[in-house]
Amino acid sequence: MKERLVGVSEETTTGVKRLYQMQETGALLFPAINVNDSVTKSKFDNLYGCRHSLPDGLMRATDVMIAGKVAVICGYGDVGKGCAAAMKTAGARVIVTEIDPICALQALMEGLQVLTLEDVLSEADIFVTTTGNKDIIMVDHMRKMKNNAIVCNIGHFDNEIDMLGLETYPGVKRITIKPQTDRWVFPDTKSGIIVLAEGRLMNLGCATGHPSFVMSCSFTNQVIAQLELWNEKSSGKYEKKVYVLPKHLDEKVAALHLGKLGARLTKLSKDQSDYVSIPIEGPYKPANYRY
Amino acid sequence: MKERLVGVSEETTTGVKRLYQMQETGALLFPAINVNDSVTKSKFDNLYGCRHSLPDGLMRATDVMIAGKVAVICGYGDVGKGCAAAMKTAGARVIVTEIDPICALQALMEGLQVLTLEDVLSEADIFVTTTGNKDIIMVDHMRKMKNNAIVCNIGHFDNEIDMLGLETYPGVKRITIKPQTDRWVFPDTKSGIIVLAEGRLMNLGCATGHPSFVMSCSFTNQVIAQLELWNEKSSGKYEKKVYVLPKHLDEKVAALHLGKLGARLTKLSKDQSDYVSIPIEGPYKPANYRY
Amino acid sequence: MKERLVGVSEETTTGVKRLYQMQETGALLFPAINVNDSVTKSKFDNLYGCRHSLPDGLMRATDVMIAGKVAVICGYGDVGKGCAAAMKTAGARVIVTEIDPICALQALMEGLQVLTLEDVLSEADIFVTTTGNKDIIMVDHMRKMKNNAIVCNIGHFDNEIDMLGLETYPGVKRITIKPQTDRWVFPDTKSGIIVLAEGRLMNLGCATGHPSFVMSCSFTNQVIAQLELWNEKSSGKYEKKVYVLPKHLDEKVAALHLGKLGARLTKLSKDQSDYVSIPIEGPYKPANYRY
Amino acid sequence: MKERLVGVSEETTTGVKRLYQMQETGALLFPAINVNDSVTKSKFDNLYGCRHSLPDGLMRATDVMIAGKVAVICGYGDVGKGCAAAMKTAGARVIVTEIDPICALQALMEGLQVLTLEDVLSEADIFVTTTGNKDIIMVDHMRKMKNNAIVCNIGHFDNEIDMLGLETYPGVKRITIKPQTDRWVFPDTKSGIIVLAEGRLMNLGCATGHPSFVMSCSFTNQVIAQLELWNEKSSGKYEKKVYVLPKHLDEKVAALHLGKLGARLTKLSKDQSDYVSIPIEGPYKPANYRY
Repeated sequence: MKERLVGVSEETTTGVKRLYQMQETGALLFPAINVNDSVTKSKFDNLYGCRHSLPDGLMRATDVMIAGKVAVICGYGDVGKGCAAAMKTAGARVIVTEIDPICALQALMEGLQVLTLEDVLSEADIFVTTTGNKDIIMVDHMRKMKNNAIVCNIGHFDNEIDMLGLETYPGVKRITIKPQTDRWVFPDTKSGIIVLAEGRLMNLGCATGHPSFVMSCSFTNQVIAQLELWNEKSSGKYEKKVYVLPKHLDEKVAALHLGKLGARLTKLSKDQSDYVSIPIEGPYKPANYRY
Repeated sequence: MKERLVGVSEETTTGVKRLYQMQETGALLFPAINVNDSVTKSKFDNLYGCRHSLPDGLMRATDVMIAGKVAVICGYGDVGKGCAAAMKTAGARVIVTEIDPICALQALMEGLQVLTLEDVLSEADIFVTTTGNKDIIMVDHMRKMKNNAIVCNIGHFDNEIDMLGLETYPGVKRITIKPQTDRWVFPDTKSGIIVLAEGRLMNLGCATGHPSFVMSCSFTNQVIAQLELWNEKSSGKYEKKVYVLPKHLDEKVAALHLGKLGARLTKLSKDQSDYVSIPIEGPYKPANYRY
Repeated sequence: MKERLVGVSEETTTGVKRLYQMQETGALLFPAINVNDSVTKSKFDNLYGCRHSLPDGLMRATDVMIAGKVAVICGYGDVGKGCAAAMKTAGARVIVTEIDPICALQALMEGLQVLTLEDVLSEADIFVTTTGNKDIIMVDHMRKMKNNAIVCNIGHFDNEIDMLGLETYPGVKRITIKPQTDRWVFPDTKSGIIVLAEGRLMNLGCATGHPSFVMSCSFTNQVIAQLELWNEKSSGKYEKKVYVLPKHLDEKVAALHLGKLGARLTKLSKDQSDYVSIPIEGPYKPANYRY
Repeated sequence: MKERLVGVSEETTTGVKRLYQMQETGALLFPAINVNDSVTKSKFDNLYGCRHSLPDGLMRATDVMIAGKVAVICGYGDVGKGCAAAMKTAGARVIVTEIDPICALQALMEGLQVLTLEDVLSEADIFVTTTGNKDIIMVDHMRKMKNNAIVCNIGHFDNEIDMLGLETYPGVKRITIKPQTDRWVFPDTKSGIIVLAEGRLMNLGCATGHPSFVMSCSFTNQVIAQLELWNEKSSGKYEKKVYVLPKHLDEKVAALHLGKLGARLTKLSKDQSDYVSIPIEGPYKPANYRY
């Protein structure tokens, strides 16, 4: 196939990781554009998308009232930030678990408590994994939770939650309340937890994923990346490596979405442009700007 | 002096900019560490510091009720984000001006309106510049504002607000209400605006700057940078260039501040560390991670 | 039937209104307890219930991203307050319409804009009626809205929205996207709006109504009212009139729900009780306290 | 004096209480209007005023960073609600203490934790009393607090905090940091707490009280009450009793403040007015409406 392939664009964290590994081992047979690390993807889809789709999935799956509940968000990256914001503004008390002290300090600055999962097992009503890692909530954690605690994953694969441990726990009973919503009852305590989407991404399993506006940002990145690959297919600009979209294209994605929301941008004057050494038409920020 | 100087560390945006210019022209005579771009500086001091000190300055200078007012934040970088959050949560309606479509889209995602300064001159009660650029609010803008509109700067030099134009406006009258709080009355309209801190940083001029906790993060960066320069003074690790602090030291700054706020970090298992290729002791994120 | 009927309890605004009318005209044949005006009903079900079920209904019906949109809430009573809070915290810009200057001022204090419907027709993306009145959004309003503006009612009957005017508009075309979600296209503009639940309560039509926790507060009021009527059926305590639950029973409803959420109440000392003339066991507030 | 006195108007909770006691004992020598229970007083001055002036007082007195701290608000009435909202939105984690289960449940619905003071003594950074009762924070509580915990009162008299117990604690040392800001050091632990305004109202002692906009609402009530008393001085309308302002005057106070904030009210049609039995010109709500 590679003869006809001009290049690929990829927007998932996991997919991008594999591309970089292929680049390192020389297994990459064509140019690739990493769309995942566009600002208009990672800081929009991950953050605002999950802020929308976490409560959506919880409501559709369980109809639980979020106000007044204790919600534990495992991980405070972009996905975790969106999830924590959604739970907090819906009236839950939010506790964050983190390995990274910088993200932990960010959580604290928003009034969130940072504790370990073990600290809060018996207190929390809703557990959400957002880490991109595995073995976050193990079956031994689940056994110690409140009756009808809700356990779900919006981060990565179904191994963030120890589904294998749960399914093979001696004497455990699975009661399917409705598709994608199961109550698992432990034989010793007769107490049960509610697992959404079998531990897979709950916003996909229990709701309809992210709303179209935020996906439009992600997909505009894809389209622009594909156009770029196609336009430069004979120029030699792109080697068999992984690239991120240049800043001005990332900014273009955003600009294309402003009109729909009624925004009006300010324009730099020539004088201002000179003063701060920023081109009038952008890009407006250095590559490593954090937004 | 340069013989005895081991190196410098610098935490302001402006200072850092000069260091990079000196590096480019070969004028840099010793190693320099750019502390401004540590996450624990730019995303803390700028963001959370201003979220605290903007309302503090407004209250001390004017005692104005922020709730119900229309606040215009010029610029939605880290400083602007902190200012907008402070005004919004205090009950103001917030309008943002931006040149950068990505930052503009971020503002929209928080429910803020994005317009040009011209659009809102006659409607807004409070104007805050946070851009790091010059000529943001000109005397012609000020003339069109409501009587007793408050105009202030928390971004950069006093040229964000056109103080020169204001001071030299024919027939304008300055009435000092109290030190750092002046009412300027235009002869034609008899209408006046209130300028804080003579257009200089209002959180320094009208309040006491940022609170100690957030400055502690900034200064810990400074101390760590100075220790690093000293420890490596004979090793040749640092040339006559500008460096940013390595990620693990940035994370260390955050970690040192968690205890005071009662946070408890989670620890990666060996297995998890291998799975995501992140060392148990960090650094936990790639260099370009945006937080 | 009246011979066997000991009394009734009623929790809807509309039902209660009818009971008071029957009391006035002498048509009330048995005692009635107005549960609607318990604090634990009107300030919980109406406010927190709608804060939950408005976004739930919007998401299930349309999957629209709320962040960045302009949402108009017609009415800022308890239902409107819940709706406005939900939209604001989800990242919408919220505009309120009101007839009552006190409620309007409350909206302003939360940073919301107060305008008339006519002011915002062409600008808003989502319209929600919460007034309990009729003729709030007329077909002439709908014709001037943006293409694909969402129009829905969470207040009262389907006459808050002029469904009759819409259905009988010459040449209008109804396209059912899915049950309870219709696009209505106007012949002159070819532009369409999306009406939820045929103008009836959208949280019932498009979602599953309020979550069980808040309904439990409402229904506990019902149960307590029924027990009270039964226990006093021979005592003559209740005449053929409409009563509200006494404050201490209202407080009991709240107290019964605290344990589930992990709350621990403080107890007055004898000394404190004397000082403020409040019984240790309550009721803690005068009848007209507003909460 | 009573011969020349037409009547009085009173806006403090404490003053009003005394007037009602005088009415009961027949000691009231002239008509009195209770302005405290106007909605435009109690739900504005108490709530939004304190939301503004609590952080103002904390910042001026201590410059403490509120973000990341644990703030305990004793009491969740109107004053407590304003204080809790201010601390939460400034990034603190807020814990509420309450005797009233309804107010406690309201706190929970906003994501706040409800515990007893004893539960949180060693954990919290900022303690605020808002109860209108006495003996809320006793010297034995203060001894168990963290070093440099901030203790202040925004509710009532200086007996909410046990100042007498503190001042007479054997060996305690008072260090005045600046006027209205004292550090009290306990001899046994060498640990100290910071007491604001000597236990009196900290927004008056450490800041400048409420901002003018919210006081304007309160004082407009006063003016309207005085005009009413004067205009009716010979009509016999007011006996030697305590009255609250009629609803339409309460609404007038609000209406007078809308223009300044750019609001535009909606007007009922005749048809709508008939449908809901509400006069076009108001009053819009029944007397016991809770807002």
